[in-house]
Amino acid sequence: MTFVSASVTAIFSPFIHERPEKSGSYGVGFTIDSGVEARLSDGDGILLNGKKFLISPVEIVLEELDESGITLETDLPISCGFGVSGASALASGIEVSVRRNLGLSLMEVADLAHKAEVLCRTGLGDVVTQFHGGVVARIKPGSPSKSEVRRYPFSQKIDFLVLGKISTRDVLEDEIKRENVRKAGKKYLKEFLKSPSTDNLFRCSKLFAVESGLMDDEIADVIEAVESGGGMASMVMLGRAVFAVNGKKAFDEFKGQKFSAKITTCGVKI
Amino acid sequence: MTFVSASVTAIFSPFIHERPEKSGSYGVGFTIDSGVEARLSDGDGILLNGKKFLISPVEIVLEELDESGITLETDLPISCGFGVSGASALASGIEVSVRRNLGLSLMEVADLAHKAEVLCRTGLGDVVTQFHGGVVARIKPGSPSKSEVRRYPFSQKIDFLVLGKISTRDVLEDEIKRENVRKAGKKYLKEFLKSPSTDNLFRCSKLFAVESGLMDDEIADVIEAVESGGGMASMVMLGRAVFAVNGKKAFDEFKGQKFSAKITTCGVKI
Repeated sequence: MTFVSASVTAIFSPFIHERPEKSGSYGVGFTIDSGVEARLSDGDGILLNGKKFLISPVEIVLEELDESGITLETDLPISCGFGVSGASALASGIEVSVRRNLGLSLMEVADLAHKAEVLCRTGLGDVVTQFHGGVVARIKPGSPSKSEVRRYPFSQKIDFLVLGKISTRDVLEDEIKRENVRKAGKKYLKEFLKSPSTDNLFRCSKLFAVESGLMDDEIADVIEAVESGGGMASMVMLGRAVFAVNGKKAFDEFKGQKFSAKITTCGVKI
Repeated sequence: MTFVSASVTAIFSPFIHERPEKSGSYGVGFTIDSGVEARLSDGDGILLNGKKFLISPVEIVLEELDESGITLETDLPISCGFGVSGASALASGIEVSVRRNLGLSLMEVADLAHKAEVLCRTGLGDVVTQFHGGVVARIKPGSPSKSEVRRYPFSQKIDFLVLGKISTRDVLEDEIKRENVRKAGKKYLKEFLKSPSTDNLFRCSKLFAVESGLMDDEIADVIEAVESGGGMASMVMLGRAVFAVNGKKAFDEFKGQKFSAKITTCGVKI
Protein backbone atom coordinates (compact mmCIF):
# COMPACT_ATOMS: atom_id res chain seq x y z
CA MET A 1 0.00 0.00 0.00
CA THR A 2 1.21 3.50 -0.83
CA PHE A 3 -0.08 6.57 1.01
CA VAL A 4 0.20 10.11 -0.35
CA SER A 5 -0.85 13.12 1.72
CA ALA A 6 -3.49 15.62 0.81
CA SER A 7 -1.96 18.90 -0.29
CA VAL A 8 -3.62 22.07 0.97
CA THR A 9 -2.74 25.11 -1.13
CA ALA A 10 -2.64 28.41 0.78
CA ILE A 11 -1.20 30.66 -1.95
CA PHE A 12 -0.61 30.01 -5.65
CA SER A 13 0.30 31.65 -8.93
CA PRO A 14 -0.19 29.50 -12.03
CA PHE A 15 2.58 29.26 -14.61
CA ILE A 16 1.49 27.70 -17.89
CA HIS A 17 4.08 26.69 -20.47
CA GLU A 18 3.58 24.77 -23.70
CA ARG A 19 5.67 21.94 -22.24
CA PRO A 20 3.84 20.30 -19.32
CA GLU A 21 7.04 19.60 -17.36
CA LYS A 22 7.79 23.33 -17.35
CA SER A 23 4.24 24.21 -16.29
CA GLY A 24 3.39 24.44 -12.63
CA SER A 25 2.91 27.14 -10.04
CA TYR A 26 4.55 29.41 -7.53
CA GLY A 27 2.98 29.33 -4.09
CA VAL A 28 2.75 27.81 -0.64
CA GLY A 29 1.00 24.60 0.37
CA PHE A 30 1.27 21.92 3.00
CA THR A 31 0.76 18.19 3.43
CA ILE A 32 -1.47 16.73 6.15
CA ASP A 33 -1.77 13.28 7.69
CA SER A 34 -4.94 12.51 5.72
CA GLY A 35 -4.59 11.46 2.11
CA VAL A 36 -5.06 8.75 -0.47
CA GLU A 37 -4.10 5.08 -0.17
CA ALA A 38 -3.38 3.13 -3.36
CA ARG A 39 -3.28 -0.63 -3.80
CA LEU A 40 -2.65 -2.67 -6.95
CA SER A 41 -5.82 -4.45 -8.00
CA ASP A 42 -6.49 -7.50 -10.16
CA GLY A 43 -9.37 -5.83 -11.99
CA ASP A 44 -9.36 -3.18 -14.68
CA GLY A 45 -9.94 0.54 -14.11
CA ILE A 46 -9.90 2.80 -11.09
CA LEU A 47 -11.89 2.06 -7.94
CA LEU A 48 -12.23 5.00 -5.52
CA ASN A 49 -13.75 4.09 -2.16
CA GLY A 50 -15.25 0.98 -3.72
CA LYS A 51 -16.81 2.65 -6.77
CA LYS A 52 -15.66 2.95 -10.40
CA PHE A 53 -14.32 6.45 -10.84
CA LEU A 54 -12.72 8.37 -13.68
CA ILE A 55 -9.64 10.26 -12.48
CA SER A 56 -7.92 11.33 -15.68
CA PRO A 57 -4.40 11.90 -14.31
CA VAL A 58 -4.47 8.43 -12.70
CA GLU A 59 -5.42 6.91 -16.05
CA ILE A 60 -2.49 8.63 -17.74
CA VAL A 61 -0.08 7.36 -15.06
CA LEU A 62 -1.40 3.80 -15.28
CA GLU A 63 -1.19 3.82 -19.07
CA GLU A 64 2.37 5.15 -18.98
CA LEU A 65 3.38 2.33 -16.60
CA ASP A 66 1.46 -0.30 -18.54
CA GLU A 67 -0.87 -1.17 -15.67
CA SER A 68 -4.63 -1.56 -15.93
CA GLY A 69 -6.15 -1.32 -12.44
CA ILE A 70 -5.74 0.43 -9.10
CA THR A 71 -7.79 0.66 -5.91
CA LEU A 72 -7.86 4.00 -4.10
CA GLU A 73 -9.22 4.88 -0.67
CA THR A 74 -9.65 8.32 0.84
CA ASP A 75 -11.62 10.16 3.53
CA LEU A 76 -11.05 13.48 1.78
CA PRO A 77 -13.68 15.44 -0.16
CA ILE A 78 -13.09 15.43 -3.94
CA SER A 79 -12.62 18.66 -5.97
CA CYS A 80 -12.51 20.78 -2.82
CA GLY A 81 -8.86 21.80 -2.83
CA PHE A 82 -7.17 18.87 -1.13
CA GLY A 83 -5.17 17.69 -4.11
CA VAL A 84 -6.90 14.32 -4.26
CA SER A 85 -6.22 13.94 -7.98
CA GLY A 86 -2.50 14.63 -7.49
CA ALA A 87 -2.30 12.33 -4.48
CA SER A 88 -4.13 9.62 -6.43
CA ALA A 89 -1.82 9.95 -9.43
CA LEU A 90 1.35 9.97 -7.31
CA ALA A 91 0.22 7.13 -5.01
CA SER A 92 -0.83 5.01 -8.00
CA GLY A 93 2.48 5.58 -9.76
CA ILE A 94 4.58 4.70 -6.71
CA GLU A 95 2.43 1.66 -5.87
CA VAL A 96 2.80 0.27 -9.40
CA SER A 97 6.53 1.03 -9.49
CA VAL A 98 7.18 -0.67 -6.14
CA ARG A 99 4.98 -3.75 -6.64
CA ARG A 100 6.12 -4.34 -10.23
CA ASN A 101 9.79 -3.65 -9.40
CA LEU A 102 10.06 -1.04 -12.13
CA GLY A 103 13.11 0.52 -10.45
CA LEU A 104 11.85 4.07 -11.00
CA SER A 105 13.06 6.78 -8.64
CA LEU A 106 10.48 8.70 -6.60
CA MET A 107 11.34 11.76 -8.68
CA GLU A 108 10.65 9.97 -11.97
CA VAL A 109 7.23 8.86 -10.73
CA ALA A 110 6.50 12.33 -9.33
CA ASP A 111 7.41 13.95 -12.66
CA LEU A 112 5.03 11.58 -14.42
CA ALA A 113 2.19 12.38 -11.97
CA HIS A 114 2.82 16.14 -12.29
CA LYS A 115 2.74 15.96 -16.11
CA ALA A 116 -0.52 14.01 -15.98
CA GLU A 117 -2.04 16.65 -13.68
CA VAL A 118 -0.97 19.50 -15.96
CA LEU A 119 -2.33 17.78 -19.07
CA CYS A 120 -5.69 17.25 -17.34
CA ARG A 121 -5.66 20.74 -15.76
CA THR A 122 -6.47 19.15 -12.40
CA GLY A 123 -3.55 20.70 -10.52
CA LEU A 124 -0.32 22.65 -10.98
CA GLY A 125 1.52 22.31 -7.68
CA ASP A 126 0.00 19.55 -5.58
CA VAL A 127 2.38 16.80 -6.70
CA VAL A 128 5.43 19.00 -5.98
CA THR A 129 4.12 19.68 -2.46
CA GLN A 130 3.24 16.01 -1.91
CA PHE A 131 6.61 14.76 -3.21
CA HIS A 132 8.49 16.95 -0.70
CA GLY A 133 6.13 17.07 2.29
CA GLY A 134 5.81 19.68 5.04
CA VAL A 135 5.01 23.35 4.48
CA VAL A 136 6.35 23.74 0.94
CA ALA A 137 7.03 27.10 -0.72
CA ARG A 138 7.31 26.61 -4.48
CA ILE A 139 9.76 29.31 -5.57
CA LYS A 140 10.32 28.05 -9.13
CA PRO A 141 7.46 26.34 -11.01
CA GLY A 142 7.65 23.09 -12.96
CA SER A 143 7.63 19.35 -12.45
CA PRO A 144 9.27 18.04 -9.25
CA SER A 145 12.66 17.63 -10.98
CA LYS A 146 12.51 21.09 -12.59
CA SER A 147 10.96 23.10 -9.77
CA GLU A 148 12.60 24.62 -6.71
CA VAL A 149 11.13 24.62 -3.22
CA ARG A 150 11.77 25.65 0.36
CA ARG A 151 10.35 23.34 3.03
CA TYR A 152 9.44 24.50 6.52
CA PRO A 153 8.95 22.14 9.45
CA PHE A 154 5.77 23.56 11.00
CA SER A 155 3.73 21.19 13.11
CA GLN A 156 0.19 22.22 13.86
CA LYS A 157 -3.29 20.76 14.12
CA ILE A 158 -5.45 22.27 11.38
CA ASP A 159 -9.26 22.33 11.33
CA PHE A 160 -11.10 22.20 8.02
CA LEU A 161 -14.60 23.24 6.97
CA VAL A 162 -15.70 22.26 3.46
CA LEU A 163 -18.63 24.23 1.99
CA GLY A 164 -18.45 23.07 -1.63
CA LYS A 165 -16.47 22.60 -4.80
CA ILE A 166 -14.60 24.90 -7.18
CA SER A 167 -13.35 23.60 -10.51
CA THR A 168 -9.60 24.19 -10.80
CA ARG A 169 -10.02 23.94 -14.56
CA ASP A 170 -12.57 26.80 -14.70
CA VAL A 171 -10.29 29.20 -12.82
CA LEU A 172 -7.23 28.18 -14.82
CA GLU A 173 -9.03 28.59 -18.15
CA ASP A 174 -10.56 32.05 -17.51
CA GLU A 175 -7.90 34.56 -18.53
CA ILE A 176 -8.94 37.48 -16.29
CA LYS A 177 -9.36 35.29 -13.21
CA ARG A 178 -6.01 33.68 -13.94
CA GLU A 179 -4.24 37.04 -14.26
CA ASN A 180 -5.59 38.27 -10.90
CA VAL A 181 -4.58 35.05 -9.23
CA ARG A 182 -1.18 35.13 -10.91
CA LYS A 183 -0.28 38.62 -9.62
CA ALA A 184 -1.60 38.18 -6.09
CA GLY A 185 -0.02 34.72 -5.78
CA LYS A 186 3.48 35.97 -6.59
CA LYS A 187 3.10 38.95 -4.27
CA TYR A 188 2.04 36.90 -1.26
CA LEU A 189 4.55 34.09 -1.87
CA LYS A 190 7.24 36.81 -1.48
CA GLU A 191 5.52 38.22 1.60
CA PHE A 192 5.40 34.76 3.21
CA LEU A 193 9.08 34.08 2.52
CA LYS A 194 10.08 37.26 4.38
CA SER A 195 8.92 35.65 7.61
CA PRO A 196 8.04 31.98 7.22
CA SER A 197 5.84 31.33 10.28
CA THR A 198 2.36 29.90 10.85
CA ASP A 199 0.96 33.35 11.70
CA ASN A 200 2.37 34.88 8.55
CA LEU A 201 1.14 31.96 6.43
CA PHE A 202 -2.45 32.65 7.50
CA ARG A 203 -2.01 36.42 7.06
CA CYS A 204 -0.55 36.11 3.53
CA SER A 205 -2.97 33.39 2.48
CA LYS A 206 -6.01 35.45 3.52
CA LEU A 207 -4.76 38.60 1.76
CA PHE A 208 -4.09 36.47 -1.32
CA ALA A 209 -7.61 35.01 -1.25
CA VAL A 210 -9.10 38.53 -1.10
CA GLU A 211 -6.87 40.24 -3.69
CA SER A 212 -7.10 37.36 -6.15
CA GLY A 213 -10.87 37.63 -6.11
CA LEU A 214 -11.28 34.00 -5.15
CA MET A 215 -12.86 34.58 -1.74
CA ASP A 216 -16.67 34.83 -1.63
CA ASP A 217 -18.86 36.27 1.16
CA GLU A 218 -19.63 32.98 2.86
CA ILE A 219 -15.94 32.05 3.07
CA ALA A 220 -15.22 35.55 4.44
CA ASP A 221 -17.93 35.06 7.10
CA VAL A 222 -16.42 31.77 8.24
CA ILE A 223 -12.93 33.28 8.47
CA GLU A 224 -14.27 36.22 10.48
CA ALA A 225 -16.04 33.86 12.87
CA VAL A 226 -12.82 31.93 13.50
CA GLU A 227 -10.88 35.14 14.08
CA SER A 228 -13.52 36.47 16.50
CA GLY A 229 -12.97 33.30 18.51
CA GLY A 230 -9.24 33.95 18.71
CA GLY A 231 -8.19 31.58 15.90
CA MET A 232 -6.58 32.05 12.49
CA ALA A 233 -8.19 31.03 9.19
CA SER A 234 -7.91 31.29 5.42
CA MET A 235 -9.30 29.75 2.26
CA VAL A 236 -8.22 26.40 0.79
CA MET A 237 -7.13 26.82 -2.86
CA LEU A 238 -9.06 25.79 -4.89
CA GLY A 239 -12.10 24.76 -2.95
CA ARG A 240 -14.98 26.42 -1.18
CA ALA A 241 -13.25 25.44 2.03
CA VAL A 242 -11.55 27.03 5.02
CA PHE A 243 -8.48 25.89 6.98
CA ALA A 244 -7.90 27.18 10.48
CA VAL A 245 -5.96 26.97 13.71
CA ASN A 246 -8.44 26.83 16.60
CA GLY A 247 -11.37 26.92 14.22
CA LYS A 248 -13.48 24.05 15.54
CA LYS A 249 -15.81 26.07 17.73
CA ALA A 250 -16.53 28.71 15.10
CA PHE A 251 -17.09 26.02 12.47
CA ASP A 252 -20.00 24.66 14.54
CA GLU A 253 -22.10 27.67 13.48
CA PHE A 254 -21.82 26.63 9.81
CA LYS A 255 -23.07 23.71 7.73
CA GLY A 256 -20.53 21.68 5.80
CA GLN A 257 -18.08 18.81 6.21
CA LYS A 258 -15.72 19.26 9.17
CA PHE A 259 -12.50 17.44 9.99
CA SER A 260 -9.10 18.02 11.53
CA ALA A 261 -5.62 16.86 10.54
CA LYS A 262 -2.00 17.52 11.43
CA ILE A 263 0.57 19.12 9.16
CA THR A 264 3.11 16.40 8.38
CA THR A 265 6.61 16.50 6.91
CA CYS A 266 5.95 13.12 5.24
CA GLY A 267 4.17 13.37 1.90
CA VAL A 268 4.72 9.75 0.86
CA LYS A 269 4.58 6.56 2.94
CA ILE A 270 4.81 2.96 1.74
CA MET B 1 9.36 16.55 19.61
CA THR B 2 11.34 15.98 16.42
CA PHE B 3 12.19 12.50 15.14
CA VAL B 4 14.97 11.79 12.64
CA SER B 5 15.50 8.30 11.21
CA ALA B 6 18.62 6.24 11.52
CA SER B 7 20.55 6.15 8.26
CA VAL B 8 22.02 2.81 7.24
CA THR B 9 24.83 3.17 4.71
CA ALA B 10 25.18 0.28 2.26
CA ILE B 11 27.77 1.77 -0.12
CA PHE B 12 29.89 4.89 0.19
CA SER B 13 32.79 6.79 -1.33
CA PRO B 14 34.13 9.70 0.74
CA PHE B 15 34.74 13.04 -0.92
CA ILE B 16 36.75 15.47 1.20
CA HIS B 17 37.02 19.13 0.19
CA GLU B 18 38.58 22.01 2.12
CA ARG B 19 35.10 23.56 2.38
CA PRO B 20 32.84 21.44 4.59
CA GLU B 21 29.69 22.17 2.57
CA LYS B 22 31.37 20.71 -0.51
CA SER B 23 32.55 17.62 1.41
CA GLY B 24 30.33 14.58 1.58
CA SER B 25 30.09 11.21 -0.09
CA TYR B 26 28.78 9.28 -3.03
CA GLY B 27 26.89 6.13 -2.09
CA VAL B 28 23.64 4.44 -1.18
CA GLY B 29 21.91 4.43 2.20
CA PHE B 30 18.43 4.15 3.59
CA THR B 31 16.32 5.44 6.46
CA ILE B 32 14.46 3.15 8.87
CA ASP B 33 11.61 3.69 11.30
CA SER B 34 13.96 3.69 14.31
CA GLY B 35 15.89 6.85 15.03
CA VAL B 36 16.52 9.71 17.42
CA GLU B 37 13.92 11.87 19.19
CA ALA B 38 14.92 15.39 20.23
CA ARG B 39 13.18 17.66 22.74
CA LEU B 40 14.13 21.15 23.89
CA SER B 41 15.26 21.05 27.53
CA ASP B 42 15.48 23.66 30.24
CA GLY B 43 18.92 22.54 31.37
CA ASP B 44 22.31 23.02 29.77
CA GLY B 45 24.12 20.46 27.65
CA ILE B 46 23.13 17.29 25.83
CA LEU B 47 21.25 14.47 27.54
CA LEU B 48 21.20 11.16 25.61
CA ASN B 49 18.87 8.52 27.07
CA GLY B 50 18.99 10.35 30.40
CA LYS B 51 22.77 10.72 30.65
CA LYS B 52 25.09 13.64 29.91
CA PHE B 53 26.74 12.89 26.58
CA LEU B 54 29.18 14.73 24.35
CA ILE B 55 28.05 14.62 20.71
CA SER B 56 30.24 17.19 18.99
CA PRO B 57 28.06 17.86 15.91
CA VAL B 58 25.05 18.47 18.17
CA GLU B 59 27.09 20.97 20.17
CA ILE B 60 28.03 22.83 17.00
CA VAL B 61 24.38 22.96 15.88
CA LEU B 62 23.18 24.20 19.27
CA GLU B 63 25.89 26.86 19.40
CA GLU B 64 25.04 28.06 15.90
CA LEU B 65 21.36 28.40 16.86
CA ASP B 66 22.18 30.01 20.21
CA GLU B 67 20.57 27.24 22.26
CA SER B 68 22.11 25.58 25.31
CA GLY B 69 20.33 22.30 26.00
CA ILE B 70 18.65 19.37 24.24
CA THR B 71 17.30 16.00 25.34
CA LEU B 72 17.80 13.05 22.98
CA GLU B 73 16.32 9.54 23.12
CA THR B 74 17.25 6.57 20.96
CA ASP B 75 17.08 2.76 20.96
CA LEU B 76 19.91 2.57 18.43
CA PRO B 77 23.48 1.49 19.19
CA ILE B 78 25.99 4.39 19.06
CA SER B 79 29.03 4.37 16.69
CA CYS B 80 27.80 1.23 14.94
CA GLY B 81 26.86 2.69 11.57
CA PHE B 82 23.32 3.93 12.18
CA GLY B 83 24.05 7.62 11.74
CA VAL B 84 23.06 8.49 15.31
CA SER B 85 25.29 11.57 15.38
CA GLY B 86 23.77 12.90 12.14
CA ALA B 87 20.23 12.11 13.30
CA SER B 88 20.97 13.81 16.63
CA ALA B 89 22.38 16.92 14.96
CA LEU B 90 19.51 17.19 12.46
CA ALA B 91 16.78 16.44 15.01
CA SER B 92 18.26 18.97 17.46
CA GLY B 93 18.48 21.66 14.79
CA ILE B 94 14.90 21.16 13.60
CA GLU B 95 13.54 20.98 17.16
CA VAL B 96 15.23 24.26 18.11
CA SER B 97 14.14 25.95 14.87
CA VAL B 98 10.50 24.88 15.28
CA ARG B 99 10.13 25.58 19.02
CA ARG B 100 11.96 28.92 18.87
CA ASN B 101 10.20 29.99 15.65
CA LEU B 102 13.49 30.67 13.91
CA GLY B 103 11.83 30.36 10.48
CA LEU B 104 14.67 28.29 9.05
CA SER B 105 13.89 25.99 6.14
CA LEU B 106 14.50 22.25 6.57
CA MET B 107 17.32 22.59 4.02
CA GLU B 108 19.05 25.34 6.01
CA VAL B 109 18.98 23.22 9.16
CA ALA B 110 20.13 20.12 7.25
CA ASP B 111 23.05 22.06 5.74
CA LEU B 112 24.05 23.14 9.23
CA ALA B 113 23.88 19.57 10.57
CA HIS B 114 25.87 18.24 7.60
CA LYS B 115 28.60 20.85 8.07
CA ALA B 116 28.83 20.00 11.77
CA GLU B 117 29.18 16.29 10.91
CA VAL B 118 31.93 16.98 8.39
CA LEU B 119 33.86 19.22 10.80
CA CYS B 120 33.71 16.51 13.48
CA ARG B 121 34.43 13.70 10.97
CA THR B 122 31.44 11.78 12.37
CA GLY B 123 29.68 11.32 9.02
CA LEU B 124 29.70 12.37 5.37
CA GLY B 125 26.35 11.31 4.00
CA ASP B 126 23.96 10.45 6.83
CA VAL B 127 22.31 13.87 7.01
CA VAL B 128 21.70 13.93 3.24
CA THR B 129 20.03 10.49 3.46
CA GLN B 130 18.02 11.51 6.54
CA PHE B 131 16.90 14.82 5.02
CA HIS B 132 15.45 13.04 1.96
CA GLY B 133 14.31 9.68 3.38
CA GLY B 134 13.84 6.33 1.63
CA VAL B 135 16.55 4.44 -0.23
CA VAL B 136 18.79 7.34 -1.18
CA ALA B 137 21.53 7.15 -3.82
CA ARG B 138 23.90 10.08 -3.40
CA ILE B 139 25.14 10.78 -6.93
CA LYS B 140 26.84 14.13 -6.21
CA PRO B 141 28.48 14.72 -2.81
CA GLY B 142 28.10 17.77 -0.59
CA SER B 143 25.72 19.30 1.90
CA PRO B 144 21.98 18.69 1.34
CA SER B 145 21.61 21.88 -0.74
CA LYS B 146 24.72 21.15 -2.84
CA SER B 147 24.37 17.40 -3.29
CA GLU B 148 22.26 15.44 -5.75
CA VAL B 149 20.33 12.29 -4.95
CA ARG B 150 17.98 9.70 -6.40
CA ARG B 151 15.39 8.30 -4.01
CA TYR B 152 13.83 4.87 -4.40
CA PRO B 153 10.62 3.82 -2.67
CA PHE B 154 11.57 0.33 -1.44
CA SER B 155 9.61 -0.98 1.49
CA GLN B 156 11.07 -3.92 3.33
CA LYS B 157 11.54 -5.23 6.84
CA ILE B 158 15.26 -5.31 7.63
CA ASP B 159 16.92 -7.37 10.38
CA PHE B 160 20.04 -6.05 12.07
CA LEU B 161 22.85 -7.74 14.01
CA VAL B 162 25.35 -5.47 15.75
CA LEU B 163 28.71 -7.06 16.68
CA GLY B 164 30.63 -3.92 17.62
CA LYS B 165 31.92 -0.49 16.74
CA ILE B 166 34.10 0.97 14.01
CA SER B 167 35.35 4.53 14.25
CA THR B 168 34.31 6.46 11.13
CA ARG B 169 37.11 8.91 11.89
CA ASP B 170 39.81 6.19 11.84
CA VAL B 171 38.77 4.94 8.41
CA LEU B 172 38.42 8.45 7.02
CA GLU B 173 41.83 9.53 8.33
CA ASP B 174 43.85 6.52 7.05
CA GLU B 175 44.82 7.38 3.48
CA ILE B 176 45.18 3.83 2.09
CA LYS B 177 41.92 2.65 3.62
CA ARG B 178 40.20 5.75 2.33
CA GLU B 179 41.50 5.24 -1.21
CA ASN B 180 40.25 1.61 -1.31
CA VAL B 181 36.87 2.65 -0.02
CA ARG B 182 36.72 5.58 -2.44
CA LYS B 183 37.29 3.43 -5.54
CA ALA B 184 35.02 0.56 -4.55
CA GLY B 185 32.28 2.94 -3.42
CA LYS B 186 32.07 4.75 -6.74
CA LYS B 187 32.15 1.47 -8.67
CA TYR B 188 29.26 -0.10 -6.76
CA LEU B 189 27.16 3.07 -6.65
CA LYS B 190 27.22 2.90 -10.48
CA GLU B 191 26.43 -0.83 -10.41
CA PHE B 192 23.46 -0.23 -8.12
CA LEU B 193 22.06 2.56 -10.31
CA LYS B 194 22.00 0.23 -13.33
CA SER B 195 19.25 -1.76 -11.65
CA PRO B 196 17.91 -0.13 -8.49
CA SER B 197 16.23 -3.06 -6.68
CA THR B 198 16.50 -4.59 -3.22
CA ASP B 199 18.33 -7.66 -4.58
CA ASN B 200 20.87 -5.53 -6.41
CA LEU B 201 21.36 -3.29 -3.38
CA PHE B 202 22.44 -6.30 -1.30
CA ARG B 203 24.62 -7.66 -4.12
CA CYS B 204 26.42 -4.34 -4.70
CA SER B 205 26.75 -3.58 -1.01
CA LYS B 206 28.37 -6.94 -0.27
CA LEU B 207 30.81 -6.66 -3.17
CA PHE B 208 31.64 -3.13 -1.98
CA ALA B 209 32.29 -4.35 1.58
CA VAL B 210 34.69 -7.03 0.30
CA GLU B 211 36.58 -4.94 -2.28
CA SER B 212 36.91 -1.94 0.02
CA GLY B 213 38.63 -4.14 2.60
CA LEU B 214 36.11 -3.18 5.28
CA MET B 215 34.59 -6.64 5.76
CA ASP B 216 36.22 -8.87 8.38
CA ASP B 217 35.90 -12.66 8.80
CA GLU B 218 33.20 -12.58 11.43
CA ILE B 219 30.99 -10.27 9.34
CA ALA B 220 31.57 -12.57 6.34
CA ASP B 221 30.50 -15.58 8.46
CA VAL B 222 27.26 -13.88 9.48
CA ILE B 223 26.44 -12.91 5.89
CA GLU B 224 27.11 -16.48 4.72
CA ALA B 225 24.84 -17.86 7.42
CA VAL B 226 22.00 -15.58 6.32
CA GLU B 227 22.48 -16.54 2.67
CA SER B 228 22.55 -20.27 3.52
CA GLY B 229 19.13 -19.74 5.10
CA GLY B 230 17.76 -18.18 1.91
CA GLY B 231 18.11 -14.53 2.97
CA MET B 232 20.19 -11.59 1.75
CA ALA B 233 22.72 -9.71 3.87
CA SER B 234 25.50 -7.15 3.80
CA MET B 235 27.58 -4.98 6.11
CA VAL B 236 26.41 -1.73 7.69
CA MET B 237 28.84 1.13 6.89
CA LEU B 238 30.59 1.97 9.16
CA GLY B 239 29.88 -0.45 11.94
CA ARG B 240 30.69 -4.04 12.77
CA ALA B 241 27.09 -4.79 11.93
CA VAL B 242 25.03 -6.70 9.37
CA PHE B 243 21.71 -5.79 7.74
CA ALA B 244 19.59 -8.49 6.17
CA VAL B 245 16.30 -9.53 4.63
CA ASN B 246 15.14 -12.75 6.32
CA GLY B 247 18.16 -12.76 8.60
CA LYS B 248 16.55 -13.34 11.98
CA LYS B 249 16.99 -17.11 12.13
CA ALA B 250 20.64 -17.03 11.08
CA PHE B 251 21.37 -14.18 13.53
CA ASP B 252 20.34 -16.47 16.40
CA GLU B 253 23.61 -18.40 15.99
CA PHE B 254 25.60 -15.25 16.78
CA LYS B 255 26.10 -13.04 19.83
CA GLY B 256 25.35 -9.36 19.50
CA GLN B 257 22.48 -6.88 19.62
CA LYS B 258 19.57 -7.84 17.35
CA PHE B 259 16.64 -5.75 16.18
CA SER B 260 14.40 -5.25 13.16
CA ALA B 261 13.05 -2.11 11.47
CA LYS B 262 11.25 -1.10 8.31
CA ILE B 263 12.69 1.02 5.53
CA THR B 264 10.75 4.30 5.57
CA THR B 265 10.42 7.12 3.04
CA CYS B 266 10.11 9.60 5.94
CA GLY B 267 13.44 10.77 7.35
CA VAL B 268 12.02 13.59 9.48
CA LYS B 269 8.82 13.71 11.58
CA ILE B 270 7.66 16.47 13.92
